[in-house]
Amino acid sequence: MTIQSYEAAGVSVEQGDRFVERLKGISRREGHQKLLPAAGGYAAVYPIAGERCVALTTDGVGTKVLLAHRYQMHRNVGIDLVAMCANDLICVGAQPTLFLDYYATGKLDIETGAQLIEGIVEGCDQAEMLLVGGETAEMPDVYQAGHYDLAGFAVGEVTTDRLLTGQNVLPGQTVIGLASSGIHSNGLSLARKILTTDDALMRLLEPTRIYVKPVMAALKAFPTQITGIAHITGGGWRNLFRLNPAVGFHISQPLPLLPVFEDILSKGIAAEEAYKTFNMGLGMAITVSADAERIAEFLGKSGFTAQIIGKVSAESGMMTIAGQAFTLNPS
Amino acid sequence: MTIQSYEAAGVSVEQGDRFVERLKGISRREGHQKLLPAAGGYAAVYPIAGERCVALTTDGVGTKVLLAHRYQMHRNVGIDLVAMCANDLICVGAQPTLFLDYYATGKLDIETGAQLIEGIVEGCDQAEMLLVGGETAEMPDVYQAGHYDLAGFAVGEVTTDRLLTGQNVLPGQTVIGLASSGIHSNGLSLARKILTTDDALMRLLEPTRIYVKPVMAALKAFPTQITGIAHITGGGWRNLFRLNPAVGFHISQPLPLLPVFEDILSKGIAAEEAYKTFNMGLGMAITVSADAERIAEFLGKSGFTAQIIGKVSAESGMMTIAGQAFTLNPS
Repeated sequence: MTIQSYEAAGVSVEQGDRFVERLKGISRREGHQKLLPAAGGYAAVYPIAGERCVALTTDGVGTKVLLAHRYQMHRNVGIDLVAMCANDLICVGAQPTLFLDYYATGKLDIETGAQLIEGIVEGCDQAEMLLVGGETAEMPDVYQAGHYDLAGFAVGEVTTDRLLTGQNVLPGQTVIGLASSGIHSNGLSLARKILTTDDALMRLLEPTRIYVKPVMAALKAFPTQITGIAHITGGGWRNLFRLNPAVGFHISQPLPLLPVFEDILSKGIAAEEAYKTFNMGLGMAITVSADAERIAEFLGKSGFTAQIIGKVSAESGMMTIAGQAFTLNPS
Repeated sequence: MTIQSYEAAGVSVEQGDRFVERLKGISRREGHQKLLPAAGGYAAVYPIAGERCVALTTDGVGTKVLLAHRYQMHRNVGIDLVAMCANDLICVGAQPTLFLDYYATGKLDIETGAQLIEGIVEGCDQAEMLLVGGETAEMPDVYQAGHYDLAGFAVGEVTTDRLLTGQNVLPGQTVIGLASSGIHSNGLSLARKILTTDDALMRLLEPTRIYVKPVMAALKAFPTQITGIAHITGGGWRNLFRLNPAVGFHISQPLPLLPVFEDILSKGIAAEEAYKTFNMGLGMAITVSADAERIAEFLGKSGFTAQIIGKVSAESGMMTIAGQAFTLNPS
């Protein structure tokens, strides 16, 4: 069987959506009214002292752990773990501050664990966070010897006046793209199955870029102009619609495709499936109401590739990429 | 081979200790000076606004997930996940407030996931927490179909004047024990291997007791008398020494053994090994400088079994239980 979709690779985005629906009745209790609305659900934002809020998120690195095991390169997935959480926090305008990790393995190998923690500490440095705690669990019979899973928990801080809610993402605004470093930590279950050479697989282990420093600097320099920030994570470009479901996007000048995405498309994955699963070169998308050129230039000075990639449109749920229409919105 | 120790069951506490040593050089960065000292390392305590602090912890439920899978009873391990985190937070004097879960599985089964989340929400109710977020990861090839792992992340709040540091746990003080409901979520890798009947195994699935309400009420009523709180979690009674390594404990009247612990001892597990691995009926230990009888009575009124079990001694690292000396301290 040729695998041509994320679903065929064993991960069902639709099943995930159904699960979220099923949970709505369970998890919505009165107390949730205390949470503040925050853009795209990237983090839970909770007022802790007056206008000061904590922003909380949790994430893992998916089946990238299997590649780390295969090539015995564990440091990069440690960086990824921090990246997945920290890049979510900045989407609500929060400054990442504290990080905790959960590391579960069949049999604890000190060198593997130390490489992972070195990566986590490196990620925390890039994200301006402190690693303040963690849990290491030895779980024979759940994980095979040498195998492991990772979860990260991150805390950020934001004041109510700086909180991004997505409600200011409006038609006519400009979209700036920040380049990804590769596949980051999403869509690995599919990519691992369609790529076969060691070269192509090892390329997947490139660590996820951490956008905290340039994005937080831009939020400080252009606080009223930046209206939304979308981390292109699981679900690929569907993440853009998390900002404001009432708008659409015309992406006329996407960032160049990195070799890893050319590898993937060359294996017969349809473009729509690819944009629904992978970041396709776009690590973060930032919507701005004014000064787009200046903000792109500001972000570009940080050493990250930044460019204007398109516009917010009034067509709810519509996405065009280089003139072609895509159905990415699940609803 | 007869399995008579946690190590033989595949979990090495010593290897865990070596890993913690190995990490010290990596994870201690300058920024850690911002963390406040907190009793036993049960939570990381970080000042967020003046004297207001957040307390953070993360934990899992160990191989109890395998029993949940075997008997297709998932709700209880959801409760356990919250319990393991919330019971840690109160050890530093923090009021648990917010919870996030990480749920990773080979193939997402909506009914299993819903049971888990129902348990988590039930646990959050018992712990007076809000479930504010989570991550559900579908990871084929890491977890077998139907199998899963869970990690919890909890946030509590405490002011610097109410923070428990362990430094006030002193010789001569009284130790109050709060009864456990059973094995809770520790030592399952050993217990699962030595117990063979369905009756004995299903007894292990009793959910972990959540001590938040009685303990927080006691902290409010007896703020100066309560000097330390130890959650008897991984490492069994070794947890008492986390409070203050300079003291010892004479436990003259331990809580009665529940049937689950009689099952375990009947399988040839030595008492010392059992006290190093399991809670042996003691869910939480509370040290008090005065009013021990009143505090035990206050805690007992909450519906939890509470009794004076012994004294803090001046003999560093020494533990006697019903007159017998045990070597539990790893250092």
